[in-house]
Amino acid sequence: MKIWTIIGCVSCVCVSGFVYSQAPGKPTEAKPVMKANAEAAVFDKDGSLLRPKGYRRWIFIGTPLTPNDMNAGHAAFPEFHNVYIDPASYDEYLKTGNFRDGAIIVKELVSVGSKSASSGKGYFEGEFIGLEASVKSKKHAPKEPGNWAYYRFTTEEGKPLLDSAKLQPSANCNSCHTGAADDYVFTEYYPVLRAAKGKGIDPDK
Amino acid sequence: MKIWTIIGCVSCVCVSGFVYSQAPGKPTEAKPVMKANAEAAVFDKDGSLLRPKGYRRWIFIGTPLTPNDMNAGHAAFPEFHNVYIDPASYDEYLKTGNFRDGAIIVKELVSVGSKSASSGKGYFEGEFIGLEASVKSKKHAPKEPGNWAYYRFTTEEGKPLLDSAKLQPSANCNSCHTGAADDYVFTEYYPVLRAAKGKGIDPDK
Repeated sequence: MKIWTIIGCVSCVCVSGFVYSQAPGKPTEAKPVMKANAEAAVFDKDGSLLRPKGYRRWIFIGTPLTPNDMNAGHAAFPEFHNVYIDPASYDEYLKTGNFRDGAIIVKELVSVGSKSASSGKGYFEGEFIGLEASVKSKKHAPKEPGNWAYYRFTTEEGKPLLDSAKLQPSANCNSCHTGAADDYVFTEYYPVLRAAKGKGIDPDK
Repeated sequence: MKIWTIIGCVSCVCVSGFVYSQAPGKPTEAKPVMKANAEAAVFDKDGSLLRPKGYRRWIFIGTPLTPNDMNAGHAAFPEFHNVYIDPASYDEYLKTGNFRDGAIIVKELVSVGSKSASSGKGYFEGEFIGLEASVKSKKHAPKEPGNWAYYRFTTEEGKPLLDSAKLQPSANCNSCHTGAADDYVFTEYYPVLRAAKGKGIDPDK
């Protein structure tokens, strides 16, 4: 189990230390055929997930960090992960405490930019270096645990992100996510979701 | 200067290791008299800033981290800082590359919850323990550098956040912020702002 967990985590890892060249407004060639709402997951006719757009206006939920220098120089995920959920799914989680079918969670990978500032020694976010997403979908992941499917848009160093991505093999991501606190989502590291779960109204209102 | 910087940083520091009790929907007693838009800074008649509401739906810009164990056990800011800007000010920054008068930046303090996960050793966000904000306002901070005023809503361990806060003495915050990259804002640690500055359209579109 431990070995699978490590393999799973490592197989999800993205190459660190580079900045991708993301052309603003670059049109995607894939044709969307399903769109639950303006901010949710969009798939092409082959079932690939189109790269999410506009997610920096979604709901930020937390930033896990497992830097190389705390993992013998070889972290599975050496970057900051800025994690977001689409607003409609946040609203549903706020109301019911559950992730709706169609929920999309985006993980934006950000390099460790520096380790020192006037405020002290620490970790400070550098540049965007990758993008991953998970979608809860009975249609697209009928046999995956919790119907969660995982997608990766990161490419080689300095190359643009993929416009669309195919479903990752189950073992690549679910091997770790099976241990997560709430419906295969690591809410133990996402204080915004924990504070919102089933509360009915925004906790910061 | 160095001493002032340290004093300034330390005087802004919030006590770590506790969770404040924030009552959802708790009405504030202060009466708002100025409201630039639904999401911006609101002051009472005495010039105190009302505690920002709904900021977890604003634009997240970055998460600086200077934990105690990297600062000889006495970090000035031992927590994660989840930092947000109001959407209208983000739009202005996207369009012009400048912070508008009335811009509000919120810093939500989050404890270090754990240092180990299935993904490796690192830092993972725990609980909300404080709230601070800065506002660029010619009216409320006519003599402060860049017209930025700083406010602190954090209280004692386990106590609710303040409903309103008075302007911090200049030395408490500006002594550090004077060294920041862009108009007294530490954009060097905020990749979302760097990517957006003057771009015209959302970089993640």
